[in-house]
Amino acid sequence: MRYLITFSYDGSGYKGYQKQPKAKTIQGEIEKVLRKINGSKAVKIHASGRTDAGVHAISQKAHFDLKKEIDPDKLKHSMNSLLPGDIYIKDIEVVSDIFHARFNVKAKEYIYKINMGEYNPIERNYVYQYNKKLDVVEMERALKYLEGEHDFTSFSKADEEKEDFTRRIVQTNIIRNMKKVDKITISFLGTGFLRYQVRNMMGTLIEIGEGKRKSEDIITILEAKDRRKAGKTANPEGLYLKDVFYDDVRQEV
Amino acid sequence: MRYLITFSYDGSGYKGYQKQPKAKTIQGEIEKVLRKINGSKAVKIHASGRTDAGVHAISQKAHFDLKKEIDPDKLKHSMNSLLPGDIYIKDIEVVSDIFHARFNVKAKEYIYKINMGEYNPIERNYVYQYNKKLDVVEMERALKYLEGEHDFTSFSKADEEKEDFTRRIVQTNIIRNMKKVDKITISFLGTGFLRYQVRNMMGTLIEIGEGKRKSEDIITILEAKDRRKAGKTANPEGLYLKDVFYDDVRQEV
Repeated sequence: MRYLITFSYDGSGYKGYQKQPKAKTIQGEIEKVLRKINGSKAVKIHASGRTDAGVHAISQKAHFDLKKEIDPDKLKHSMNSLLPGDIYIKDIEVVSDIFHARFNVKAKEYIYKINMGEYNPIERNYVYQYNKKLDVVEMERALKYLEGEHDFTSFSKADEEKEDFTRRIVQTNIIRNMKKVDKITISFLGTGFLRYQVRNMMGTLIEIGEGKRKSEDIITILEAKDRRKAGKTANPEGLYLKDVFYDDVRQEV
Repeated sequence: MRYLITFSYDGSGYKGYQKQPKAKTIQGEIEKVLRKINGSKAVKIHASGRTDAGVHAISQKAHFDLKKEIDPDKLKHSMNSLLPGDIYIKDIEVVSDIFHARFNVKAKEYIYKINMGEYNPIERNYVYQYNKKLDVVEMERALKYLEGEHDFTSFSKADEEKEDFTRRIVQTNIIRNMKKVDKITISFLGTGFLRYQVRNMMGTLIEIGEGKRKSEDIITILEAKDRRKAGKTANPEGLYLKDVFYDDVRQEV
């Protein structure tokens, strides 16, 4: 039986999503719990993609197989009772054997939170503390140049070896907080993202908001296909994997 | 020279505000930093009051004396550069020698945050995860019985030895979040609070919201002057010291 889980996590205490030999990771914690449920037999989970150290997830998705059939609600309850408080299984559904949580991704949404106001110690791991004003209108213009299908080599991980750096950003937005005027949330909906892509786009957008670059610079940065042309990699703590979308293959059990 | 500091902290990593021999405390961290600034000579700080382990502060206040005069902005900068990221000095002002951060308190405001929706691992240390519906209207009625001057023995720490348990709650409120309907924030403005008073009132209010008690039960609980008559002590993580108010004695330098 193949199960698809939707889960949320606080990335602050982890070395990232992906399992590593000696580090505390999200994948490692979940697989440890599944091993217990599966009578000490190892279970490998396949997520929609990894998230970096310090990055959070509101709705990450992963699939795994279990020989025995367990009622999804009971499985959810067992997993949550064994998982640490900073990882939570929101939903479990049974999916088709041919469904794959990474290969079947149709779109993903990321959000990035910035505090332009006074430093706030209570949210330091959850909102990037920029603590200075940014030109949000210019950032909004820059975002529009990122939308569409582009070769994102300039915004990828420097030494990334990939065949194809083409990705499509379907929609971007800056959400202003009406009550807390110094807070902004930037959202990116895309068919897929390269490693560090959102953080590299955010680092560049922040430099645009600071006035160090113009919104139109995005055009030349994209054309250059050179990581050195874009801005710094923005801090991980402002970043959240908000949602992962699939086709209806999920329901075809 | 007497200085009044306004500071914010994330209480999750601390054994409370008040200094203890072997535990990590807010007071301990601030005094360690002031000792460095004061040429290795100890500086004692006097806060408006303590907060329990896990409780946060948006604007806590404390005073301390330094022999040498330091420009408040420079002092703020030095302190923040030496303090850990979960404590932040928001403001420093020079006050009169007769000003006392505890004895001169005119009023304090506390807020308590509850999530009645699905468990959220990202906010587990910052919002009490009740994760079930509460009868907010009945809780609102109960709050009104707490307003005014009362003997709060029933809501105090069980073994508290005090002369006078009379305190005055000036105003209470339940703030609903229009966008996130499952979130509520309860605020208490009072001339002073006993140890555990807000958490004991909150524990009782939650039992009222659960339907285990009625709002009018507050009257008999107050009259009983018996800690055993009230509800449980609510978890610390939902609680924030929001503000501390003084008369104009501050400005009379």
